[in-house]
Amino acid sequence: MKNFTFFVVAVAALAGLVAFIVPAPGHADGAANPPYVTEIPQGYRDWQWVSSAHEAGSLNSLGAVLGNDIAIKAYREGKLPYPDGAIIAALHYRNVPSDENNKVFGKVQSFVPGPPTNIQFMVKDSTRYAATGGWGFGHFQNGKPADADFMKPCFPCHAKAKGTDLVFTRYAP
Amino acid sequence: MKNFTFFVVAVAALAGLVAFIVPAPGHADGAANPPYVTEIPQGYRDWQWVSSAHEAGSLNSLGAVLGNDIAIKAYREGKLPYPDGAIIAALHYRNVPSDENNKVFGKVQSFVPGPPTNIQFMVKDSTRYAATGGWGFGHFQNGKPADADFMKPCFPCHAKAKGTDLVFTRYAP
Repeated sequence: MKNFTFFVVAVAALAGLVAFIVPAPGHADGAANPPYVTEIPQGYRDWQWVSSAHEAGSLNSLGAVLGNDIAIKAYREGKLPYPDGAIIAALHYRNVPSDENNKVFGKVQSFVPGPPTNIQFMVKDSTRYAATGGWGFGHFQNGKPADADFMKPCFPCHAKAKGTDLVFTRYAP
Repeated sequence: MKNFTFFVVAVAALAGLVAFIVPAPGHADGAANPPYVTEIPQGYRDWQWVSSAHEAGSLNSLGAVLGNDIAIKAYREGKLPYPDGAIIAALHYRNVPSDENNKVFGKVQSFVPGPPTNIQFMVKDSTRYAATGGWGFGHFQNGKPADADFMKPCFPCHAKAKGTDLVFTRYAP
């Protein structure tokens, strides 16, 4: 009886552990949701500048990519893959003409970041995010993380940038 | 005789000092060239990000504005005028489509910094640059400063941004 109790407890504990490690399947197709970033990394607005980016078309976005010290070091050394601890932040804003600048230029020429739209993160942790190439993806709007459904396309799309360890943005010299 | 020698030496020294402080007039119109920034401020590539900017049209530029600690603090506190020691750097690149990104998107959507075009600086020193609103302007191409003629339009144009202490770029939150 004693042994059986131990067995039950052990199985329950193991089940709990497995439940903790493996995210619950949440969709009709039964696929597990890999973990993603649900908390905004601290201090990201103070990080160094990697590059700027303008997405035209429906995104109509102007922004910047910043990196924490580990990411910036890896960028500058050109070493791949990025080491654990590297975090890359993409700060997106609506791409808007600057009325005050254009008044000076005398034409619509100057475009600047307008209202913030979202912040995205890539957090390198080859253990925690093993299922998504070692990167945890995060997307925040008004400080709140996107849901698992929204996050699904991040990895397969970034996986296309295999040659740069899934990172699209290049370092601007 | 001794007194006269002292006088000559003193006048010569004073003249040297004045020559050092006041830049020589260099143009047919006889206007003195106000001092401008002729050395690239150290470590600017490590500074924090203020904002990104895209200049369309003939400039076709994509870049970022970075600030040293003094400038960033002033930006964040919204205090004007910027204190002495503040330096703002504008890193400009040709605005080019990212072929590797667009291949993933399936359309020409993504624009990134291409080859560097120039770096510009505004250095706040209300004494040294008193003639140009307390700001020294700098423009560097391939590491070399522009000449005095090239620098002439900087101040009158920036003077139009009087409400923000001659600084066009706003801080992106």
